[in-house]
Amino acid sequence: HSRNDETNQLKQRISKLEKSATKIKTTGGGLRISNKNSGSSFKLNGRFHLDYDNFDGAYNGMNQGKRASDLFIRRARIGISGNMNPIWSYKFTLAFGGGNRSGTNREDGRIQNAILSYNGFKKMGGPQVQVGKIKEDTTLEATTSSNYITTISRSTIVNAVSPFFNWGLRVNQNFKQYGLRYAVGMYQAADGSSNGREDANGKNLWAFTGRANFAPIATKDKVIHLGIWGSYRDNGDAKFRNRARGEIRNTNIRLLDSRMGGQDVAVKNITEGGVEFAGVYGPFSLQSEYIKRNTDTVDSADSKPNLSGYYVTGSYFITGESRYYDQAKGVFSQPKGIRHALEAYVRFSDADSKFDNAELDNEPQGTEVEVLTLGMNYYVNPQVRLMFDYLDTKVSGSSDALAALSNSQDKGKGVVARVQYLF
Amino acid sequence: HSRNDETNQLKQRISKLEKSATKIKTTGGGLRISNKNSGSSFKLNGRFHLDYDNFDGAYNGMNQGKRASDLFIRRARIGISGNMNPIWSYKFTLAFGGGNRSGTNREDGRIQNAILSYNGFKKMGGPQVQVGKIKEDTTLEATTSSNYITTISRSTIVNAVSPFFNWGLRVNQNFKQYGLRYAVGMYQAADGSSNGREDANGKNLWAFTGRANFAPIATKDKVIHLGIWGSYRDNGDAKFRNRARGEIRNTNIRLLDSRMGGQDVAVKNITEGGVEFAGVYGPFSLQSEYIKRNTDTVDSADSKPNLSGYYVTGSYFITGESRYYDQAKGVFSQPKGIRHALEAYVRFSDADSKFDNAELDNEPQGTEVEVLTLGMNYYVNPQVRLMFDYLDTKVSGSSDALAALSNSQDKGKGVVARVQYLF
Amino acid sequence: HSRNDETNQLKQRISKLEKSATKIKTTGGGLRISNKNSGSSFKLNGRFHLDYDNFDGAYNGMNQGKRASDLFIRRARIGISGNMNPIWSYKFTLAFGGGNRSGTNREDGRIQNAILSYNGFKKMGGPQVQVGKIKEDTTLEATTSSNYITTISRSTIVNAVSPFFNWGLRVNQNFKQYGLRYAVGMYQAADGSSNGREDANGKNLWAFTGRANFAPIATKDKVIHLGIWGSYRDNGDAKFRNRARGEIRNTNIRLLDSRMGGQDVAVKNITEGGVEFAGVYGPFSLQSEYIKRNTDTVDSADSKPNLSGYYVTGSYFITGESRYYDQAKGVFSQPKGIRHALEAYVRFSDADSKFDNAELDNEPQGTEVEVLTLGMNYYVNPQVRLMFDYLDTKVSGSSDALAALSNSQDKGKGVVARVQYLF
Repeated sequence: HSRNDETNQLKQRISKLEKSATKIKTTGGGLRISNKNSGSSFKLNGRFHLDYDNFDGAYNGMNQGKRASDLFIRRARIGISGNMNPIWSYKFTLAFGGGNRSGTNREDGRIQNAILSYNGFKKMGGPQVQVGKIKEDTTLEATTSSNYITTISRSTIVNAVSPFFNWGLRVNQNFKQYGLRYAVGMYQAADGSSNGREDANGKNLWAFTGRANFAPIATKDKVIHLGIWGSYRDNGDAKFRNRARGEIRNTNIRLLDSRMGGQDVAVKNITEGGVEFAGVYGPFSLQSEYIKRNTDTVDSADSKPNLSGYYVTGSYFITGESRYYDQAKGVFSQPKGIRHALEAYVRFSDADSKFDNAELDNEPQGTEVEVLTLGMNYYVNPQVRLMFDYLDTKVSGSSDALAALSNSQDKGKGVVARVQYLF
Repeated sequence: HSRNDETNQLKQRISKLEKSATKIKTTGGGLRISNKNSGSSFKLNGRFHLDYDNFDGAYNGMNQGKRASDLFIRRARIGISGNMNPIWSYKFTLAFGGGNRSGTNREDGRIQNAILSYNGFKKMGGPQVQVGKIKEDTTLEATTSSNYITTISRSTIVNAVSPFFNWGLRVNQNFKQYGLRYAVGMYQAADGSSNGREDANGKNLWAFTGRANFAPIATKDKVIHLGIWGSYRDNGDAKFRNRARGEIRNTNIRLLDSRMGGQDVAVKNITEGGVEFAGVYGPFSLQSEYIKRNTDTVDSADSKPNLSGYYVTGSYFITGESRYYDQAKGVFSQPKGIRHALEAYVRFSDADSKFDNAELDNEPQGTEVEVLTLGMNYYVNPQVRLMFDYLDTKVSGSSDALAALSNSQDKGKGVVARVQYLF
Repeated sequence: HSRNDETNQLKQRISKLEKSATKIKTTGGGLRISNKNSGSSFKLNGRFHLDYDNFDGAYNGMNQGKRASDLFIRRARIGISGNMNPIWSYKFTLAFGGGNRSGTNREDGRIQNAILSYNGFKKMGGPQVQVGKIKEDTTLEATTSSNYITTISRSTIVNAVSPFFNWGLRVNQNFKQYGLRYAVGMYQAADGSSNGREDANGKNLWAFTGRANFAPIATKDKVIHLGIWGSYRDNGDAKFRNRARGEIRNTNIRLLDSRMGGQDVAVKNITEGGVEFAGVYGPFSLQSEYIKRNTDTVDSADSKPNLSGYYVTGSYFITGESRYYDQAKGVFSQPKGIRHALEAYVRFSDADSKFDNAELDNEPQGTEVEVLTLGMNYYVNPQVRLMFDYLDTKVSGSSDALAALSNSQDKGKGVVARVQYLF
């Protein structure tokens, strides 16, 4: 039986090798390494969104509405992330590309996000706590990854109100059994619309942002998603402007602009929020949000540069797939393992920054932007997606506002195409 | 025979472990991981070119030709790349360093290249299709990796005409059995000489670039390489200037400059091209290119700011190695597995931007730059190369041109040294 | 015995698999891969220092000393490094974050360090030779990693004199048996105080820097560290200014400033140096340095804008750990394997840039900064550290100097907190 012992020893040694704790995956050309003994892991992944924009009319108002175009890297990101153990994890994403049309530095590297997560409470059924540069929980379309939004661009109203990534502290918790989830956070109040992250004395401005969502139905091919979000943002008494592009990235003009035909107004703070609905029924999906931004002016006699808008997106997978719903985050992503799939979609969006300015004899100022998008996605596989959008846009406002914005061009058409690669 | 079965089972389990699909290499301190089952892979590599420049005369004309110097990182790059499967692959390179002498941001990060490749046709003997930020296929010296060019700097004429990396679409195909290869592409027409990537109305400018090469002989120590390339580049009616450094990177002056002593001319488009010859005979190698750039002026009465030039490089491996020829790309690289090798070389280059400007009473303007380089490379191993160049430079042009360029300094000498590390 | 042979073969095959040359670790969520056969390795690691600053008085003198604050990423770094073999190795660290308060680019990427090391002599008991962007060997506090300094900020005097990372060549050697170590280097003479890296003619300015340290005692819980360092720095006859922050990073004002109330003086070169003492006795540690900077003015009749200062830091691990001493580098780091540890500390620092300017009728100019820091570190584990500092600051100088610096504010208090993650 020394023979038997020997064989058993060999078996044990082989088993140990077979159960080797370290697993390595190079799926999609990225890197994922994990060790199940220590619970530690490392991941390197990325995205690559190469866009071509072609547009005219109001989008190129500064050049009499002539046809203009640009080929550019909308997003090039490299992310590294890892787990120290089941309790602590981090994520660090570098962004290259996506800079402004005219900037010479539009392909420079910078921090996209940098997050340290404490999962100690979460392991016991409680919330996850995070610090760092985190995407604030605002609209459904904003919280959905840019890899998985249906259209090439988010809607005008969403881009106008979403602060995207800011430094702060965030708490989120999921009650899976109820389909319920919330996230709340406190952030440095910087975004594209406000005048920076500090007041005139150098004091940090804070924003408080929260979102809750509820999915009464969340099966593989049937989803009902309801959401609500809100944000209170200190503006430090600075001049304020509602502003956003008209769903084409590299135009010279931002079609939504509350300053046009008037002037900015000093604002104490901003309160904004919205309601979300989304549904999936087999290959069909419908998604819609209504969004409102209220401002509290420094001078109470001033008119308030408020903002409101909405969008409705309908999508249909011709090849039969269903949009994937991630209940734990309250967002959608592409169908898992998708391959050679075709998706047609339509979106109508409206964003209105017009108001009558009491300081200027109640003259109306600001613009309203309505965009109809028709588009098609071709998913080659989970890594490669080709996208094609046609946009028909109408800008309205006082004649002064339109003259100042776009040399009075009030319509604009565009085609936008994207090659997307995820690794 | 239950004993036999058991042993066979053990054998099979061991074989499976031995054939583990994942291979990991840390050669040179980089990282290469591949999985032969899925055909997926991941690579992280990089380069590091640390230069010291010391120069006088025309190179430092703004300071009366006194001796000047700089120590700087010419290139610091990190590349990540991978295969999703045998059909799709990507490459993403970040560049740090190499900024201008005076810039405060000369070590900032940015996109060097970002390429998505489709190899589906290639697998069936057809072409490879690529999109992204790609090195345009122009001259042999420009398409050769900066890791493997013989001298520290490419020649003046090559730097003047080569657009290097631009966003676009590229198709390339190799007919190995004939030693024949071509690459053609359509790119956003940006380069150092032109005025940017769009016309006055914001319309994207395009360039069409192609190169073909033929190697009637391509053995380990005997190579004949013949090549031809051409590029048509829309200049959007912008003012145009031929301009390049004189083969020393961090000088304050760019010795080749068609504006000097005159003015820029509005140009509709640029047509440029060249012919390539290279030969290897044991340790000897000879490489030469002739290059011509023609311009089509907006005003047909204007004189054309054309450009022409050539270079001849001779190199000799004292330790007997032969330059390695990569027929599939039509470029050279360092000998494989090189170790403790010494290479001596000489290059003479000429670039001439002079022309008589009809707008200015046919006064001559622009400069011509002739550079003789003598140098030595010491290859410690495939990762580490030490380089040393001596440069003797002559600038010619009208007295006005030389006065404007370099306070009339018409000669310049320099020594340049490099430590190169590849991982 | 064919049976025996078979079993032995199986054993050998299993042994070979068990001894697999490639080791992979994802400790802390980073990546470490090594191959013991080739001696090659690859590492990807990083750090993440998220700070909150809150301060008043002189620190916010431009706003009448009102309370100001900022939340920002003090350091976000990703390092890749590797060994080609036991002889050659490299390190390349990218820095994101840490830019100035007002800069729009404060989260942009750039080279932090980039080092190529030759260990051939070291293997034979000789020195290590390095080229690249290297941290100059100046003070103990400056050479200690920012991950392991006791307080959130280094002291004012150390920040004023330390050039930190510069391009150059460095030689260092350790005589372990004697507890003796030295490092000397030649670098491009750039730092925060000097006017750049070249003289008026474009000639590279050099600095020569060296440090030696001796540890007569260096056990796990008892350490005596003695050190001495010096640097000679060519200033190229440029105007010179001693300048540093007052131990809070994101203030609008740099409290130490030799220009205030007077003017800069043209300086030929700078000679600076200091002596270091540090001791560990169980959970107690004491660390102190005295530092002096002398300047050689272009006009010998000019008064010299010299600088001097010191700091004393005391720290006590309430939970009983001892600071870890790395004799081979002459620096301290956190205790190995630390977990749930609490450290209390106090530092007093003084930096004096005041001098009487002969050019201005011997009027005094410049400021002196004294800072008392009380703080607490909580080490969750080797990756996560929470830090909290309270700072009480006094600025002195002529009434003109204080008026120019901070609207005559001469005191400032601050609290600074940090979340630190190392992977």
